[in-house]
Amino acid sequence: MALPEESYTMKEAMLYSQRIAQLSKALWKAVEKDWQQWIKPYDLNINEHHILWIAYHLKGASISDVARFGVMHVSTAFNFSKKLEERGFLKFSKRDDDKRNTYVELTKEGEDLILLMYDHYYDTEHSILNGSLALKELYGRFPEFLDVMAVIRNIYGEDFIEIFEKSFNNFKESLVEDDDKLIVKR
Amino acid sequence: MALPEESYTMKEAMLYSQRIAQLSKALWKAVEKDWQQWIKPYDLNINEHHILWIAYHLKGASISDVARFGVMHVSTAFNFSKKLEERGFLKFSKRDDDKRNTYVELTKEGEDLILLMYDHYYDTEHSILNGSLALKELYGRFPEFLDVMAVIRNIYGEDFIEIFEKSFNNFKESLVEDDDKLIVKR
Repeated sequence: MALPEESYTMKEAMLYSQRIAQLSKALWKAVEKDWQQWIKPYDLNINEHHILWIAYHLKGASISDVARFGVMHVSTAFNFSKKLEERGFLKFSKRDDDKRNTYVELTKEGEDLILLMYDHYYDTEHSILNGSLALKELYGRFPEFLDVMAVIRNIYGEDFIEIFEKSFNNFKESLVEDDDKLIVKR
Repeated sequence: MALPEESYTMKEAMLYSQRIAQLSKALWKAVEKDWQQWIKPYDLNINEHHILWIAYHLKGASISDVARFGVMHVSTAFNFSKKLEERGFLKFSKRDDDKRNTYVELTKEGEDLILLMYDHYYDTEHSILNGSLALKELYGRFPEFLDVMAVIRNIYGEDFIEIFEKSFNNFKESLVEDDDKLIVKR
């Protein structure tokens, strides 16, 4: 067994990476369960909802951006997009400035679905949210997971983070709180 | 849509939980890929390896501990344990002080396999490790993901964290670094 890098011991590195493996499995399983409960009434799987999510918040996206940002194979992104097109939620297009890539964007029905789903977001339990309240109370805001962000930036690259921030900026701008109602603007 | 808690706005909460969903998917997909590449030569899936991992580092574990700590259904833990038993890596037992639960522990062959796999740990790429080096250099140690730990503690409970720390303490004690070799002691 060779020393992978000189800046850390093999022991530290192995304990660290095995620790992260366990933690990230536990975190993802909780997120996955929340996500599945939320989307269950709409007959979508997580990948399908993720495709709609990305296409909506990026205001249209290429299949390769969907795959990259949704962390799925290009064939998975394409095949589920096709199914969403058949159900009338998504449409395929080419862009004049980029003839090589296929783009997807939401139809009126797809937008209605996404907005309906946000409207019912708090109908199901979000264990991640409940599990974060103590941190929110302690620090005055939700945790930012800056070390996770940094690791993801190094693994997936700067443009992954750029798409990430762009989608959340668009999301944030579209959210309006009105008394006790949360409205996602078109 | 009702306000879920009064201590935060629905807008904050939605942006936060959607952010964590994206981050944890990306993190888990990287971990999953590293994990699969590492275990591929040994004809194991992630759940099977996880069961061996837990049984090894806890020095034997009940099926319900395996399920809880491995974040899998009890039936999944049981069925994959059965397969591992058939392959001669695991044995089932009852404990005198706990007749109700079924315990699993590694056979000599199972231990040999786990140790062989650690011996080849650095034969495959660990993107999580590479993606964490910049943080290690900056802070002098690997990140601890304390906010992730806190959220997991709140979701899965204090005993999840206790099992987690116990398994890593055992793991740490069993690891010996000898010149450029890392040895996992029995």
